[in-house]
Amino acid sequence: MSRVIARAKVRHWNGTGFVSRPDSVAGEEPLEIRVAGAPFTVTMRTPGHDIELAHGLLHAEGIVAGRADVTVMRYCDGVDEQGRNTYNVLDVALSPTAADPAAVAAAARSLTTTSACGVCGSASIDALAKRQRYPLPVDGPVFDPAVLARLPELLRPRQQGFRTTGGLHAAALATTDGRLEFVREDVGRHNAVDKVIGAAMLEGRLPLGDRALLTSSRASFELVQKAVLAGIPVLVAVSAPSSLAVELAESTGLTLVGFTRHDGFNLYTGHHRVRGA
Amino acid sequence: MSRVIARAKVRHWNGTGFVSRPDSVAGEEPLEIRVAGAPFTVTMRTPGHDIELAHGLLHAEGIVAGRADVTVMRYCDGVDEQGRNTYNVLDVALSPTAADPAAVAAAARSLTTTSACGVCGSASIDALAKRQRYPLPVDGPVFDPAVLARLPELLRPRQQGFRTTGGLHAAALATTDGRLEFVREDVGRHNAVDKVIGAAMLEGRLPLGDRALLTSSRASFELVQKAVLAGIPVLVAVSAPSSLAVELAESTGLTLVGFTRHDGFNLYTGHHRVRGA
Repeated sequence: MSRVIARAKVRHWNGTGFVSRPDSVAGEEPLEIRVAGAPFTVTMRTPGHDIELAHGLLHAEGIVAGRADVTVMRYCDGVDEQGRNTYNVLDVALSPTAADPAAVAAAARSLTTTSACGVCGSASIDALAKRQRYPLPVDGPVFDPAVLARLPELLRPRQQGFRTTGGLHAAALATTDGRLEFVREDVGRHNAVDKVIGAAMLEGRLPLGDRALLTSSRASFELVQKAVLAGIPVLVAVSAPSSLAVELAESTGLTLVGFTRHDGFNLYTGHHRVRGA
Repeated sequence: MSRVIARAKVRHWNGTGFVSRPDSVAGEEPLEIRVAGAPFTVTMRTPGHDIELAHGLLHAEGIVAGRADVTVMRYCDGVDEQGRNTYNVLDVALSPTAADPAAVAAAARSLTTTSACGVCGSASIDALAKRQRYPLPVDGPVFDPAVLARLPELLRPRQQGFRTTGGLHAAALATTDGRLEFVREDVGRHNAVDKVIGAAMLEGRLPLGDRALLTSSRASFELVQKAVLAGIPVLVAVSAPSSLAVELAESTGLTLVGFTRHDGFNLYTGHHRVRGA
């Protein structure tokens, strides 16, 4: 059985009675990422493209900047009580060019705490600015609005897991002529984006200054942050953005598009990258 | 301006051209929770019902079992660079009945790591079982399928923030006769659920053995876990469950309902709590 899609038996209520029938549900399993043997984080994800996911996640956390920072990434040798490898533990060896052990340990503590009492949106935005390696390109790329509006319907036929389960988010990169690359799915929208960015990183493609990041979900602060850190100047969300996503997009100069439908969308920030706006 | 809903100015593309217009977006700001002055966690949330959110979150993390475990919870006195209190830092003082400092520190490290290589769904389920205070009631409650199917449409008119922004999840408790209690909204579905359970805890209502937990979103492992820890025997999701949500529901005896619409739903586990199933 696929670990991306699991089978379940359900009793479906149709308004008058119950009928038993098979159903497909989105796979969700923990992935533990270790750096040099030490626990780094655990994320609940849909199995598949784990190496890409780990690259993307470590990039967003500031541990690696490119594929050269990772020497080896492999599943743990061990087995569970039933004697099977779970393929749920990835051990990562970093090259000397990557973040040093102290920085890794600090990131693993994972608490973005502040020394003062002033934790607020601005502080979160300032913290990101310090970690930004790639300034977003100022002049381009320029997307045609009709191309942006078409992206969700170009993505949909490639959301194979969603079609079967209704329970998976998708993300992808898009070119100005509406071509999609690295379509990835996951129960977590942040994981789907990490898989996309990790996949591009493995091809040595960062920063992605001429691409848009497309997400089938809402646009949160976290997703804008991941786009900015990968140097992607445009984020296109099928659903709503949050207030802090809009603020971060504004302050970093990212173009943020939300509620994207075939017949329209909202452009929140970065108008100069959309023709006619 | 409300911090739950923020104003934004957008350029709306309607298929032929751009029109400028005001828009409302869901508020998203960091909330830092400190326990006895030490950083515990930061969550991106929609401001409002923060005290409830912190109670629910600390309950799900095993730090507090009931309201008696918290002596004081108050916003940090300090101010940000502009001299304003951000109301984004909550300091929690625990009573001696709550988790001890070592347990708090361990939870704050927040890494559900395993000693062996076998991190997998079963391990996650076993870890929850060790933390479960309230066994779910075996015999009841029993919900009428027509009542379950109606819950999303009872919730919708009370999702005020969603109606304005399209960007907020909602959660609530439901009685067997279809009454909703503690309707809460948040950009994070886990936060919305923490607010609901925290609100019930503040009224001394845990465990909630005769209620269903309703969520406007998908059902993940994490949401099933929060329901089980609060002793709630039924989880009703408007959208899809994940594989691990189904497994956890099965192993704990929780009734899991998904894809809930006015004309039908899927019942994944715990059939005995739904009449006629």
